[in-house]
Amino acid sequence: MAKRIYNFNAGPSTLPLDVLKIVQDELLDYRGTGMSVMEISHRSAQFDEINEAAISLTRELMGLDESYHVLFMGGGASTQFGLIPMNFLRDGQTGAYVDTGTWSSKAIKECEIQGKMHLAGSSKKDNYTFIPKMADLDVPADAAYLHITSNNTIKGTQYHSWPKVSVPLIVDMSSDIMSRQLDHTMFSMMYAGAQKNLGPSGATMVVIKDDLLQTCKDGNPTMLDYRTHASKKSLYNTPPAFGIYIIKLVLEWVKNQGGLAAVEKVNRAKQERLYQAIDLNNDFYRGPVQKDSRSWMNVCFRLPTEDLEKKFIAEATAAGFGGLKGHRSVGGCRASIYNAMTLEGCEKLAEFMQNFKKAN
Amino acid sequence: MAKRIYNFNAGPSTLPLDVLKIVQDELLDYRGTGMSVMEISHRSAQFDEINEAAISLTRELMGLDESYHVLFMGGGASTQFGLIPMNFLRDGQTGAYVDTGTWSSKAIKECEIQGKMHLAGSSKKDNYTFIPKMADLDVPADAAYLHITSNNTIKGTQYHSWPKVSVPLIVDMSSDIMSRQLDHTMFSMMYAGAQKNLGPSGATMVVIKDDLLQTCKDGNPTMLDYRTHASKKSLYNTPPAFGIYIIKLVLEWVKNQGGLAAVEKVNRAKQERLYQAIDLNNDFYRGPVQKDSRSWMNVCFRLPTEDLEKKFIAEATAAGFGGLKGHRSVGGCRASIYNAMTLEGCEKLAEFMQNFKKAN
Repeated sequence: MAKRIYNFNAGPSTLPLDVLKIVQDELLDYRGTGMSVMEISHRSAQFDEINEAAISLTRELMGLDESYHVLFMGGGASTQFGLIPMNFLRDGQTGAYVDTGTWSSKAIKECEIQGKMHLAGSSKKDNYTFIPKMADLDVPADAAYLHITSNNTIKGTQYHSWPKVSVPLIVDMSSDIMSRQLDHTMFSMMYAGAQKNLGPSGATMVVIKDDLLQTCKDGNPTMLDYRTHASKKSLYNTPPAFGIYIIKLVLEWVKNQGGLAAVEKVNRAKQERLYQAIDLNNDFYRGPVQKDSRSWMNVCFRLPTEDLEKKFIAEATAAGFGGLKGHRSVGGCRASIYNAMTLEGCEKLAEFMQNFKKAN
Repeated sequence: MAKRIYNFNAGPSTLPLDVLKIVQDELLDYRGTGMSVMEISHRSAQFDEINEAAISLTRELMGLDESYHVLFMGGGASTQFGLIPMNFLRDGQTGAYVDTGTWSSKAIKECEIQGKMHLAGSSKKDNYTFIPKMADLDVPADAAYLHITSNNTIKGTQYHSWPKVSVPLIVDMSSDIMSRQLDHTMFSMMYAGAQKNLGPSGATMVVIKDDLLQTCKDGNPTMLDYRTHASKKSLYNTPPAFGIYIIKLVLEWVKNQGGLAAVEKVNRAKQERLYQAIDLNNDFYRGPVQKDSRSWMNVCFRLPTEDLEKKFIAEATAAGFGGLKGHRSVGGCRASIYNAMTLEGCEKLAEFMQNFKKAN
């Protein structure tokens, strides 16, 4: 029996144990083929079935029809930051961005490298402690697109309402994709590095509406043009096949629980439990984020002193709670509670927080 | 006990069984961490150790010093086709290429999209059945680089001598990296999709000499600039971590066998056994490639008729030899015998070929 900790890593992060057990079980012989899934051809019937299932499960769970392409690419979300203006920003056009933290800022930088960027909103001067009000956003009607970051892993904020815009809405969903019910048809493009809610790092999911896809600019390198991947269902070249295989297993796991409605219910309970532990002990724990912008995925909190934070993290680690250190750029503590983290894990952590406060 | 076939797939392809067993064994709990290696942070001490080991084993096995950077990127070799001119081809400069088949042609196309391409040599009009003579290559002295494809998986040809040029020599080694002893210092850049000799698809190894790296052009998207990856040892963003982990295990496996000298010895014996089976039965089997250009990695052969080829592949599959169908673009048969294919596998296949001839 493998020892397993409660893994609160921000990403790569915990995966469903049921999925890992399947992977382990069929690692030397994928379903009677006599080969590992890593050893089968991406042109084989077996892999085609995996790829098709990953695509159709994505559409099904998100409530999308075939006007949305589902792609699996390499390079992480950071590569998408560059590909978005490369594909969609035409000469003289502007890309509109909302700046809600580190990842938004990196996306913005890539737009500035390639063309004109327009800042539609920002919470930078308030240290990114909230998501700007949607009514306050300033989006030029002729912008090529509006780019937002739906969840901010480092600061622990998340969108709970959405901009209504006439330009294509592009969202970096790396850290909260498939975590709640949404009308996904409001987005023209959604993308996510797999390593939080979907699978291992090295595969990036890109969901892109056909009418946006058709506007890709000509003249880019073949592999950097979204149309290449869409036209071949990500099989123009050898895709990150093992990652797609795990994504497919994770999406089956999501579906078996009852889809995004069921996942949202558990995620709601998980974050409530942890924010409660903070709010009911606010003489000791402090959540730096405005309540209406709190992330359901990354619960950030501070303790009275940095020494106590160190002690908290050390004792939590010893007690089997891993990954609670805040991002190196901000310090403090952070519990990342993506889909695969159990309610039990959050309850145990809340209990630990309570006990730690009593003892210190 | 898992059933395992003799897997002659062209890529993704067979991996060392010893490596797969380690992966399986530690899949739920990586070395006492209580997490899968897919669940640990890429900023953790555990992953850092994996990454550093993969880098230093690469240098050690190839006989390179620290003037070579070892990067692990996403997107496959096909993405590198575009990144090479993007990084190294300056306005007015020419990229020189040798065309030895499908993959070279794709690399050439990406140069033509971005700038001026000069054809230094080609075997296209002879259906790519050989590697052009090195003395016949025409490389402009002011070319930005010369690009070659060291092994051609589809046609089954391989370089056995090397161009001597004053411009940087860039080689796509996707299908024969780490398969033989070479003076690797003759190359300024080597790259390879992992899925043949190194690991699973989704990770691409790029080995690049510092003096070439320093010539990268400014103004490209951050993730498409090699310097980004080199300066952070591939950890600017979350890398394809699971792929790097397996690459590290495969490189340890190579080292434990005695390094590239030992691997070359086995690979020499493997290809000899199969080409012998063809040549000694040349009233039945036919190798379309000129003998001095034969690939040690992909042994291509034809049978008297296409019907016999179908029968051969069907009976071989039934007998436990997988992946023997030639590439869809050329037909025929192909045995891909990368490092992880055993000599025993090749001997059994040679025996099967002999018996099949007798019976047909």
